[in-house]
Amino acid sequence: MKGFVFHGPGQSAWQDIPDPALKDPTDAVVRVDAVTICGTDLHILKGDVPDVRPGTVLGHEAVGEIVEVGGDVRTVRPGDRVLVSCISACGRCRFCRESAYGQCRGGGGWILGHLIDGTQAEYVRVPHADLSVHVLPSSVGNEDAVLLADIFPTSYEVGVLNGHVRPGDTVAVVGAGPIGLAAIATARLFAPERIVAVDPAPARLEAAKRLGADAVADAREDPEQLVADLTDGLGADVVIEAVGLPESFEACTRMVRPGGHVANVGVHGKPAVLHLEDLWIKNITLTTGLVDTSSTPTLLRMAAAGRLPTADLVTHTFPLNHMEEAYDVFGRAADTGALKVVLGDLPHREVAVRAA
Amino acid sequence: MKGFVFHGPGQSAWQDIPDPALKDPTDAVVRVDAVTICGTDLHILKGDVPDVRPGTVLGHEAVGEIVEVGGDVRTVRPGDRVLVSCISACGRCRFCRESAYGQCRGGGGWILGHLIDGTQAEYVRVPHADLSVHVLPSSVGNEDAVLLADIFPTSYEVGVLNGHVRPGDTVAVVGAGPIGLAAIATARLFAPERIVAVDPAPARLEAAKRLGADAVADAREDPEQLVADLTDGLGADVVIEAVGLPESFEACTRMVRPGGHVANVGVHGKPAVLHLEDLWIKNITLTTGLVDTSSTPTLLRMAAAGRLPTADLVTHTFPLNHMEEAYDVFGRAADTGALKVVLGDLPHREVAVRAA
Repeated sequence: MKGFVFHGPGQSAWQDIPDPALKDPTDAVVRVDAVTICGTDLHILKGDVPDVRPGTVLGHEAVGEIVEVGGDVRTVRPGDRVLVSCISACGRCRFCRESAYGQCRGGGGWILGHLIDGTQAEYVRVPHADLSVHVLPSSVGNEDAVLLADIFPTSYEVGVLNGHVRPGDTVAVVGAGPIGLAAIATARLFAPERIVAVDPAPARLEAAKRLGADAVADAREDPEQLVADLTDGLGADVVIEAVGLPESFEACTRMVRPGGHVANVGVHGKPAVLHLEDLWIKNITLTTGLVDTSSTPTLLRMAAAGRLPTADLVTHTFPLNHMEEAYDVFGRAADTGALKVVLGDLPHREVAVRAA
Repeated sequence: MKGFVFHGPGQSAWQDIPDPALKDPTDAVVRVDAVTICGTDLHILKGDVPDVRPGTVLGHEAVGEIVEVGGDVRTVRPGDRVLVSCISACGRCRFCRESAYGQCRGGGGWILGHLIDGTQAEYVRVPHADLSVHVLPSSVGNEDAVLLADIFPTSYEVGVLNGHVRPGDTVAVVGAGPIGLAAIATARLFAPERIVAVDPAPARLEAAKRLGADAVADAREDPEQLVADLTDGLGADVVIEAVGLPESFEACTRMVRPGGHVANVGVHGKPAVLHLEDLWIKNITLTTGLVDTSSTPTLLRMAAAGRLPTADLVTHTFPLNHMEEAYDVFGRAADTGALKVVLGDLPHREVAVRAA
């Protein structure tokens, strides 16, 4: 088969690789029908995630069909159309028993396209299949479903739920890339008074408005002042960090009101300064997190009911074997306007191969 | 009357000052029968809290008798024996309405001995008396009650409740001064599996054991390794920072398990480094806070029932007019072994004036 292989920083290729096979009786093999590229994949390509060994197939999000299951798999069978979650879960360790699947100690967690071969290939072996794939309702198209593998549960759990967004809140979302946009869309579910999106890119701020932001601020101007002006000088009830840089994190801690929440979703490569000399007295709650995907069943029901604007984030689609082109378009998002790129068999959409 | 006046960094005196008088109809004037000194008062004397203007009477904790109330005061009257809380509360602003009294925007919050004259005097004016004093049960002695003005609610709310201590948890308390010791005592109420106290002072670690720590670690050795060894390498479920230094805060963020809580109680004068490159993926919750004293009624009921080891923290007692000596003993705690010093009329205890 073909797959997208990481060969060390700056080196990768869509190439021939061996077909995956069952290894453990809890495995499934899935034929990949749709896949997407995550910002984390770009970090891996740059060498920012040293756990990923050269030779690994990237990708941790997919929709596909079960082609084979091990003898201990109970909840799916060949022919089932499934979502492959970015988080695998043994279901048995202390973390899985508390739905903290992202921290699974039984061989799960974020392993696909990280510690083992991932989903950016024609087939993928999924360990712990019972708790690591979700059978898809037929009403949810591939391009919608694949956004529920990582980005929507991440934004919802690590941003909106960890941030405790409540009705009437002012929510500031710092960073209006795909994760920030999905945070805006899912924050709306809790009827906040207003959502303020902050980003340096005008096109992303426009997308933020389409997905439900009530106000937008150019990150290079004075977003903190805008948030202060909108809140009688108090600050936002909830601030969601969706960038992953020290300066944006630090801005978040200045934007939050006393008693408010800062929910970090960004993937960080460097430490930040925490101004405890100001914050010790402010009663803030600051959370970090890898997604658990415990919300995926809920989000799938909402998508089936047409209640999530998943497909609004998909700007570019490609056939699966245009992987390198898709990476190029996604990696140059500032030029191409890419939000999410989806590859594969997308019967609900016209598959448009766009010039890179 | 006499009071202890801050005259700028390094300068203070127990001296004659005018008697306080009612200013607003919501005020009460309280005769101070017992008072204590807080670590924060030492910070003020060093000049670390620039909001405190020279000429201010220090102190934000007291037990006393109401001698006069304004026309709008409804819940207390002259003759009532009361606890003067470190937090005053207007009861009407959006923060008070959510019991976040520490963040009161209606003229309350931490004001005594900070923005207005405090309790280290023979009399004190208490604004917003209805929500800023608590009538005391006769069974709670002055030296016990005065520890409920700040230290016990602070340790309980900002440490134990913010940290979400639960049965079976491993709780690490970093800093075994009075705040850390009160955190140990109140963490016990939630039946943790074990409490580990960390401090460089052997005498404080002994006190930690008396108050309920199951294990102790010298802060200068390798407390992180001890916590790791006790928890199969995972880290503590809850880590309570009760020091207020960047290095102790940073140690707390290394001691916490994935999915755990770091509750900062320490008063910080400097920023800390937050290692988001490690923590973004660990699902930690980090809280800061000034106490709200919303737990004070509960703690008072527990003290009346003999369920809080308040008096165990009182190492030195003095008559009120020995204020300067008491500051000296408290300020040289490493030499004197002082935990809490209490001054005033202490009929339940022998008032021992010790050589400084």
